[in-house]
Amino acid sequence: MKILVEKANIMLFTAAGIEFVKGDIAIEGGKIKSIGKAPEGFTAVKKIDARGMMAMPGLINTHTHLPMSLLRNYADDMPLMEWLEKKVWPVEARLSEEDIYWGSMLSIAELIMSGTTCFNDMYEFADSVAQAAADSGIRGFVANTLFDRTRDGDRELSKTADLFHKWSKNADGRIGVMVAPHAPYTCSDDYLIEASKLASELGTGLHIHLSESRSEVEESIRRNKKTPVRHMQELGIFEGRTLAAHCVHVTGEDIDLLSQNNVCVLNNPASNLKLGNGFAPIEAMLQKGICVSLGTDGACSNNSQNMLEEMKLAALINKGIAENPQAMGAEKVIKMATLSGAKTLGIAGLTGSLEEGKAADIILVDMGAAHMQPVHNMSSAVVYSAQAVDVDTVIVNGKILMENRMLTTINLEYIKKKVLESACRITRV
Amino acid sequence: MKILVEKANIMLFTAAGIEFVKGDIAIEGGKIKSIGKAPEGFTAVKKIDARGMMAMPGLINTHTHLPMSLLRNYADDMPLMEWLEKKVWPVEARLSEEDIYWGSMLSIAELIMSGTTCFNDMYEFADSVAQAAADSGIRGFVANTLFDRTRDGDRELSKTADLFHKWSKNADGRIGVMVAPHAPYTCSDDYLIEASKLASELGTGLHIHLSESRSEVEESIRRNKKTPVRHMQELGIFEGRTLAAHCVHVTGEDIDLLSQNNVCVLNNPASNLKLGNGFAPIEAMLQKGICVSLGTDGACSNNSQNMLEEMKLAALINKGIAENPQAMGAEKVIKMATLSGAKTLGIAGLTGSLEEGKAADIILVDMGAAHMQPVHNMSSAVVYSAQAVDVDTVIVNGKILMENRMLTTINLEYIKKKVLESACRITRV
Ligand SMILES: [Zn+2]
Ligand SMILES: [Zn+2]
Repeated sequence: MKILVEKANIMLFTAAGIEFVKGDIAIEGGKIKSIGKAPEGFTAVKKIDARGMMAMPGLINTHTHLPMSLLRNYADDMPLMEWLEKKVWPVEARLSEEDIYWGSMLSIAELIMSGTTCFNDMYEFADSVAQAAADSGIRGFVANTLFDRTRDGDRELSKTADLFHKWSKNADGRIGVMVAPHAPYTCSDDYLIEASKLASELGTGLHIHLSESRSEVEESIRRNKKTPVRHMQELGIFEGRTLAAHCVHVTGEDIDLLSQNNVCVLNNPASNLKLGNGFAPIEAMLQKGICVSLGTDGACSNNSQNMLEEMKLAALINKGIAENPQAMGAEKVIKMATLSGAKTLGIAGLTGSLEEGKAADIILVDMGAAHMQPVHNMSSAVVYSAQAVDVDTVIVNGKILMENRMLTTINLEYIKKKVLESACRITRV
Repeated sequence: MKILVEKANIMLFTAAGIEFVKGDIAIEGGKIKSIGKAPEGFTAVKKIDARGMMAMPGLINTHTHLPMSLLRNYADDMPLMEWLEKKVWPVEARLSEEDIYWGSMLSIAELIMSGTTCFNDMYEFADSVAQAAADSGIRGFVANTLFDRTRDGDRELSKTADLFHKWSKNADGRIGVMVAPHAPYTCSDDYLIEASKLASELGTGLHIHLSESRSEVEESIRRNKKTPVRHMQELGIFEGRTLAAHCVHVTGEDIDLLSQNNVCVLNNPASNLKLGNGFAPIEAMLQKGICVSLGTDGACSNNSQNMLEEMKLAALINKGIAENPQAMGAEKVIKMATLSGAKTLGIAGLTGSLEEGKAADIILVDMGAAHMQPVHNMSSAVVYSAQAVDVDTVIVNGKILMENRMLTTINLEYIKKKVLESACRITRV
């Protein structure tokens, strides 16, 4: 469908930083055809009046577990192992493929309603997550979480390969599949190597949790005499494209290794704080040239899937740690949540910024709310003041998924009903 | 007006913690007449259908500078002194009484729309802030910021006394006046003592910034050979009721002094992080029995006036610092943002919790949004998942200030227009 977004303040990434131009965005065939002024003779089927709105690239959430919205606010303020053993795992063991679908749909609704156009997920029954992405129109990467300490690892690997072949040609190319061994401490070394080989064979990324908690690092040093990062590097895992979530407890040497091996770091500030893991040294990583992007982690450890919240938190926490108000400025945070996310997922040629020829993954942010006024600086406004409710319109791959805050592909009332049924069943004692 | 809030999930503070009862809240003469079931023969003029909503005490923001919303997102990510000297102070010097009124109204709109029913302010032209509070129907404390290093301190003190006498009998008792010397480093010792005496004479509190930055503490040690907290204590300031904002850089001895002198601490996590000051050791203060409440600080250093955001941030940051997911649980945060706020302001007998006989300062939170579902735990939901947009209805002193997210006393479009005029004038180079 040909769409014309009219009279927006359009956010552009330039060599100098972030600039805004006033103008129109013409969309055709799912792509951005022009920015600034519509081409002669461009006849839009749909026009969107974007006066008072800022058009920016859709946000990219590079680490989440969508179906965990089923357990939102179910078990908080608890010690980690008690949380996992008494609350999360028993309930997760009861999850069906259908539960996963409804949980994913609920999270996708939340993503869209807070301006996210692309996610990177890791969970059980990833086929259901992919189906939810396909049905809702959002862009995303899915992955089956792989363990071999507690289950048949080989079967899981072959399921991942099947998943890859099924979805890679589907849904207009919106859905990708990654290989996702859960973490170095839940997978044997051999299994990590096998997973890495599979990722390379498929030409996709390896998505893993890494150096999230202090105890994980301590255990690795006890067992392997080295940090999890060094261990992964020595196993050869980093030879493929690696996406490492968290990297909270990393040494200077770890940061060098991550940088030298082009490992992308997925930063989840809310989750790291909430679970008591601390803060990742993001500024130090960025200084070493590491590609750092932002994620929410699952709704169970956040308990939102709201990238705007995550952006503000990333700015605040990094300034606070550094005792430096200039650390992690608004423009840096915006790029972390958009273009760096696309680079991380290997799709920077396709999305992550507003450029002619890229996919039309665009959000319109209404700048008119009381909490946004007056608008002295649009980059600051979106990082420090914007709330999910300010996201008026969301377009993915040239299709409108939300307009005037109304979802176009998801019947939220129905999803809420199905989620409630699932949540009641799985948490029944 | 007699109001009946029907079929709500009502948040009650009990000895055991937070409990919820389903039922009605009857409101009469500005007060809560009953909770649970309306009294026989209670005929409400107005009924509010609160199915699917949680009724909780309105949030109390104990440290802000409302008119600074005029400078929201005007100057971010800058070093503190450059920020003050080049951006904030030159612009503040141009502010008129009228600007202050419009900036206050904008902030009050934001407060109401994010569930805050009471604030504690400190700024120039506090009479205009009080007028905005009076006109909007919100509850609040105002104070003229007092300095004597750069202006005539005595005149400012007498203006404070006038302000107190003018407003203390006005606006149905919704408006209080405090004495607010800016900080130990901007006021001479004699002036601090005079201000403290005035507060005691008037029977009100002394509101001051204290130990906010590392450099403030270092300078105090250089000049006075003691920390700002110890210095204040030795001057006798703490003999009156003292409300100290920030207290980020405090020693163990400072914490003991604050505790022994019943100083209330106003915690502003977002502002402390954003300005690069760090984190206040709140858990340590609470363990020493200090009354700690929450504030947003001004929109210039946050850049929101959203207590829900501040509550989540307080929970996250304290867990992260302590590396303990059990630190600063949801119930603790809720009390910090409500009852502790009321205690801090000396009005716990009047507000801060839902109790029969207290003022009807009530907010209704809609639990139905995608980002709140499913509702496994209402305390967690409000701290970790709720957004301003979930606040459906706000009642202050028995009067409805927002219903179905529509403001009843403020014409936001008009306020935005006036704010824009002020903002353009004061920032014109
Ligand atoms: Zn995770
Ligand atoms: Zn302040």
